[in-house]
Amino acid sequence: MLYDIIKKVRLTAPRIHCITNYVTANDCANILLACGASPIMADCPEESAEITAHCGGLVINLGTLSPQRLEAMLISGKKANELGLPVVFDPVGAGASEFRTNAAKKLLNEVRIDIIRGNLSEIRSLAGASSREHGVDTADMLTDDKLQRAVRLAKELSAKTGSVTVITGENDIATDASAVYRIKNGHPIMSRITGCGCMLSAITGAFAAAAPESRLLAAVSAAAALDICGELAAARLTSADGNASCRNYMIDAVYRLTDETLTEKANIEKL
Amino acid sequence: MLYDIIKKVRLTAPRIHCITNYVTANDCANILLACGASPIMADCPEESAEITAHCGGLVINLGTLSPQRLEAMLISGKKANELGLPVVFDPVGAGASEFRTNAAKKLLNEVRIDIIRGNLSEIRSLAGASSREHGVDTADMLTDDKLQRAVRLAKELSAKTGSVTVITGENDIATDASAVYRIKNGHPIMSRITGCGCMLSAITGAFAAAAPESRLLAAVSAAAALDICGELAAARLTSADGNASCRNYMIDAVYRLTDETLTEKANIEKL
Amino acid sequence: MLYDIIKKVRLTAPRIHCITNYVTANDCANILLACGASPIMADCPEESAEITAHCGGLVINLGTLSPQRLEAMLISGKKANELGLPVVFDPVGAGASEFRTNAAKKLLNEVRIDIIRGNLSEIRSLAGASSREHGVDTADMLTDDKLQRAVRLAKELSAKTGSVTVITGENDIATDASAVYRIKNGHPIMSRITGCGCMLSAITGAFAAAAPESRLLAAVSAAAALDICGELAAARLTSADGNASCRNYMIDAVYRLTDETLTEKANIEKL
Repeated sequence: MLYDIIKKVRLTAPRIHCITNYVTANDCANILLACGASPIMADCPEESAEITAHCGGLVINLGTLSPQRLEAMLISGKKANELGLPVVFDPVGAGASEFRTNAAKKLLNEVRIDIIRGNLSEIRSLAGASSREHGVDTADMLTDDKLQRAVRLAKELSAKTGSVTVITGENDIATDASAVYRIKNGHPIMSRITGCGCMLSAITGAFAAAAPESRLLAAVSAAAALDICGELAAARLTSADGNASCRNYMIDAVYRLTDETLTEKANIEKL
Repeated sequence: MLYDIIKKVRLTAPRIHCITNYVTANDCANILLACGASPIMADCPEESAEITAHCGGLVINLGTLSPQRLEAMLISGKKANELGLPVVFDPVGAGASEFRTNAAKKLLNEVRIDIIRGNLSEIRSLAGASSREHGVDTADMLTDDKLQRAVRLAKELSAKTGSVTVITGENDIATDASAVYRIKNGHPIMSRITGCGCMLSAITGAFAAAAPESRLLAAVSAAAALDICGELAAARLTSADGNASCRNYMIDAVYRLTDETLTEKANIEKL
Repeated sequence: MLYDIIKKVRLTAPRIHCITNYVTANDCANILLACGASPIMADCPEESAEITAHCGGLVINLGTLSPQRLEAMLISGKKANELGLPVVFDPVGAGASEFRTNAAKKLLNEVRIDIIRGNLSEIRSLAGASSREHGVDTADMLTDDKLQRAVRLAKELSAKTGSVTVITGENDIATDASAVYRIKNGHPIMSRITGCGCMLSAITGAFAAAAPESRLLAAVSAAAALDICGELAAARLTSADGNASCRNYMIDAVYRLTDETLTEKANIEKL
């Protein structure tokens, strides 16, 4: 199940509505096409509900947020809920400004989110002051103690919101409050490619649309897929290549990705 | 004539004002530079007329539309008309929302458009309910019957608007209501690269600016040029490359494109 | 000093707030990551001061300007001034419309700018009607006479504003009104890559943040770094590669750039 969702994405070609930032919108569109989905970027309140209604999933991303884009997210989020479409939420920069933190909270309050995907500090800002894990303050989740605290934080947020929570970093964690997966794939250069998080959120939308029966497995599978493609891209780098070529190679690898490669390369642990 | 417009673009280096979406703006700018033109992206009503007045052509593209961008399109479109500059219109997503369909109609009513470039469903939504070809509802134009219906649809729209109409798909069709060209170049992977349509519309603006004596030939030539560059790009792909590298190779191919290559590779039929 | 700022950028990893255009935002983010800095793109007046306050430098860029983005620039510029953070200003298109020229003047009046980076026509429009060098009207600075006039123009603007002025073209000039540097590196294909100027302004912000003791040397070093990476990228081009691959290779080269390479390749003259 975990490894064949990519096949379902290619078979069903879900149309994914992205309300996202302009920094990485092009990469998100190309990586959705690479995995077999069909992207529609539209962020205008005047049309966002109608666009969502034509789609199989919705991805909302707080990068380069504006009041107009936030309004479109709320409208489309509610429409997706009404239609039973999966909603993925990427709280880019939550915690970096009151405007974004409040926007994230408003979205969590007014829209039923299926999957939240962020880094540790973003997830911590969503879990809020009430979190017992307030001291989690580094992106490094590789020591056992830090990993355990990140897991507790993710579980807290999932318990509070009913969403699957994915924390990405050197390792990724995904949980629905009960089951917890740790994805050990990936490569350090991914932190030097802008929009890896955005791209993961985008394809998570496609995976969730193709496998509505399990949001958690869809999220785990998408994270493993991107991480493995990051590894494959890093392995292609010549001594002259850097992060720009690696970005292209990573999207290329998604284009070529099969469930066989996913099965062979995935390094996933159920905690 | 058909094959040497690229040479004229390189000689005259027309400045092209693009009011376009943020998803593919970077690719549109780079492909305009690749063909020898000079892009200016500006979408703010406060300055759009003035920017247009410094340019040799205008390209308006409905992707990620907003009311402000629409206002800029109307202002710049009228300025371009006043100055006799070619106007290319890319009705991205027309038909996907009332807001976009109405915006497209408003633009067609208030601006004299030289060339409309869209896919079949976008063109159908512009031709409107009055079209006798209401049943044309697939992107596939490869069977004779479907091709003939697409041709009739394009001719209808051209007759109604006075514009050249270009429908792109597996094959491309271009018509000015009387003459019809079918461009058989291209490669399936182009449908997996975001913004191929936007890029074609962008360079069509440059071709039209460089060859004002024939809007139809400019449109045919630009479509053949991009399709051939798509073929050249696909031919460069290694077994690890995918749509991201292909996008780069396609723009690269435009950068290297000569009228000799165009002449040699073009597979164009006058219907 | 000149050549080891890149090392300091990698060591200190400054966070750079960019209020920039959507055409080249992705490239700016990736090139900041390539040189070891950390980009934050945010352009909304509701949060821009707060975002700036988390950063080590601010880069404001007039491309695809809107009234909202201008407001964010003014707010963030004042916040950066208050906190003593370096501010880099890229007056994209100044002179192309009244809206942009006025925006540029407003920014120069209300924000203390550390470094202005533009091409000759943009810098001339900032120097204004009062400039004795009104006749400087070509991007070509390679004849001695034209170079001297560009130098006088840059010095005038620096004297008037207190900023370091960088004019980029076939050669680059940087001055703080007294010392003048000429950077002879670079490659003609850079003029065919959209956003080379924007990317330079972005990394100039990172260099200035890492070397606050000398804004002029930071600006010279950043210009040399990008120019040398343009040369390295051009040297990698195959006969099929063009401007799209070159863009990637250039960012890749920044990712790989060492102070040794900078020292070896730099062709800088103190005038």
